[in-house]
Amino acid sequence: MSRLKFEISLSLDGFVAGPNQSVEHPLGEGGEGLHDWVLKLEVWRRAHGREGGEVNVSTEVVEEATANDGATVMGRNMFGGGPGAWGEDPWTGWWGEEPPFHMPVFVLTHHDREPLEMEGGTTFHFVTDGIESALEQARAAADGKDVHLAGGAEAARQYLAAGLVDEMWLHVVPILLGAGARLFDETTAATPLEQVRVVEAPGVAHLRYRRAG
Amino acid sequence: MSRLKFEISLSLDGFVAGPNQSVEHPLGEGGEGLHDWVLKLEVWRRAHGREGGEVNVSTEVVEEATANDGATVMGRNMFGGGPGAWGEDPWTGWWGEEPPFHMPVFVLTHHDREPLEMEGGTTFHFVTDGIESALEQARAAADGKDVHLAGGAEAARQYLAAGLVDEMWLHVVPILLGAGARLFDETTAATPLEQVRVVEAPGVAHLRYRRAG
Repeated sequence: MSRLKFEISLSLDGFVAGPNQSVEHPLGEGGEGLHDWVLKLEVWRRAHGREGGEVNVSTEVVEEATANDGATVMGRNMFGGGPGAWGEDPWTGWWGEEPPFHMPVFVLTHHDREPLEMEGGTTFHFVTDGIESALEQARAAADGKDVHLAGGAEAARQYLAAGLVDEMWLHVVPILLGAGARLFDETTAATPLEQVRVVEAPGVAHLRYRRAG
Repeated sequence: MSRLKFEISLSLDGFVAGPNQSVEHPLGEGGEGLHDWVLKLEVWRRAHGREGGEVNVSTEVVEEATANDGATVMGRNMFGGGPGAWGEDPWTGWWGEEPPFHMPVFVLTHHDREPLEMEGGTTFHFVTDGIESALEQARAAADGKDVHLAGGAEAARQYLAAGLVDEMWLHVVPILLGAGARLFDETTAATPLEQVRVVEAPGVAHLRYRRAG
């Protein structure tokens, strides 16, 4: 059965980004450190075309979290661009000519657009009729493999609230932000969870949960 | 050096109690499961005069979290009673004649009262001049050992906001409450933290942090 999975880094007080996100502070004020644990890993650097980096306990977690992925879903903020970028020189995402997905990616958006085929096996499909439709299309494309919800937090919250998330890895970082964008809110309380695995790694606690029952 | 430590159970979305706390739902709606992991342990049951119970990975965490304690601080809600209970038949706490502390306990309150000596080594001291005074008095009484902040969440938040907490164990339970009493808020963001230890146990993730630097 094709599962919908996601993974996200969050502060110990539950924020996926600090307050006042901007071009200068894309992760909000104080949020810069949220992804340090992954950016320094060899496995992340290699996937993004860079050399060097660390191998530690987190490496296995990153590999496990993305193993068996057959398709990706992402929110419109994560893809970026906005409506103005759908013109003559259209926005093609943040990742250059060869994005690190290497699979079909279904982008939640309000703006219809033809599929966008990139190098290395990534094709962006634009879905305007909601999260359930995007998941259905991604499941079909995944052909028995899993669907990976790449983010951002808003998309993750919507899928959680709809009870559609089968598994998640939370990467809890020892930072207290005090304010910003939360992963969980009053809409996400419905799903009963089961703890699957807890992993201690340098500067981060990896917590894996699945939908119970 | 005598450290100020606390430990608390919280839901995956950061609540130490669910919404609408009442006599019927002392931990709020949906919050009943927050302490299941500890209530079934032999080490907890023994400390509270009961027999039986489980021994598992959490046992060591509970023992480590309370090792070297020389004095306890607690908030007024945790002690209970309220102003009306300071009369002829005064309130002596929730724990019967032999409370499970076996050490001096400094209770934050607005109502002055003589110290209350219980059986088994517990003496309740009532402190009306604030959290720093309570900590100072507890440190003096602990005589080189640690001071344990027993709760509740409001007292823990106040000590966190004042930057006075040296160490904490967070017991993260796979429940999403959606609303209720938070441990962390905008006042607690100041303290830089360091991850000390992460322990996987049945139905709970134990995360230990200390003040950095």
